[in-house]
Amino acid sequence: MTDIVVLRIGHRPERDQRVTTHVGLTSRALGARGMYLAGEDRGVVRSIRDVVHRWGGEFFIRDGIKWRHCMQRWKDDGGIVVHLTMYGESLVDHEEKLRTFPKIMVVVGAEKVPGEVFGIADYNISITSQPHSEISSLAVFLDRIFKGKELNLKFEGGRMKIIPSRDAKITEDL
Amino acid sequence: MTDIVVLRIGHRPERDQRVTTHVGLTSRALGARGMYLAGEDRGVVRSIRDVVHRWGGEFFIRDGIKWRHCMQRWKDDGGIVVHLTMYGESLVDHEEKLRTFPKIMVVVGAEKVPGEVFGIADYNISITSQPHSEISSLAVFLDRIFKGKELNLKFEGGRMKIIPSRDAKITEDL
Repeated sequence: MTDIVVLRIGHRPERDQRVTTHVGLTSRALGARGMYLAGEDRGVVRSIRDVVHRWGGEFFIRDGIKWRHCMQRWKDDGGIVVHLTMYGESLVDHEEKLRTFPKIMVVVGAEKVPGEVFGIADYNISITSQPHSEISSLAVFLDRIFKGKELNLKFEGGRMKIIPSRDAKITEDL
Repeated sequence: MTDIVVLRIGHRPERDQRVTTHVGLTSRALGARGMYLAGEDRGVVRSIRDVVHRWGGEFFIRDGIKWRHCMQRWKDDGGIVVHLTMYGESLVDHEEKLRTFPKIMVVVGAEKVPGEVFGIADYNISITSQPHSEISSLAVFLDRIFKGKELNLKFEGGRMKIIPSRDAKITEDL
């Protein structure tokens, strides 16, 4: 599978804590390797690490990241940067090409994204040109780039797992 | 396209306002016809209606809904009810069957969902058995049921639209 990391920018502590946590959990559940968080928020870091501890896998999260440096370094290492934005070009027109890259950094912003990001990104990609949510954009992006393979991932080393059920909540302690 | 409506349950005013707004905007952008909100929250209703006014389309939102009644009535009218939950059966195993139904109500909960919901729903469906986000689950569900057709929807009657661009923010007033 493509090596995908997520860079969350524009995070405002307090106000964005839940949404950024959803971005992180979505990244993990849908097959990204980790998330960089521009700005500091120990609460988000703790929530995500707690999920990794209980549910397994090797997802990393790092806060206090400088976004310019983080994007540039990823590019210097041979990765490409895809910024998800409602202003961008349609995912449908680019997904086949995007799947050919071995390393992708996905940048997701909160409400305001500095104009400079559009220039540093190799691709500015929209999941519809309508306002919705960075969480849903990221989810559709990951599901399409991984072509559904991420839905069958195993997360090793957790403390519990779910036994899928028709109509009940069944968990197993490991 | 399948007639899809979303029912948001377990919404706590204040705490869930942003996440529920993302649920509503995702529903609209990815082709659902409207959202029922169990509980009252005029702030969420106002945000969503404001987006509909500016960006077009006919998406409806109604708050103050009783969820049991709303689900039952949908079923009495011949629709099926799909509850998205990490405890459910895999979407991949059911999506082909689900696409054959003309009317689907998608139920998305906040943190705690009453056990009764699992029983009333015709299907309890998971998008991975890992904890992530009701917003990302809904997005993947809609994209898969609509098979990407929703990404090309036109939203008529708005005040503005985006001209997709490689690296700039371009909007047009209508």
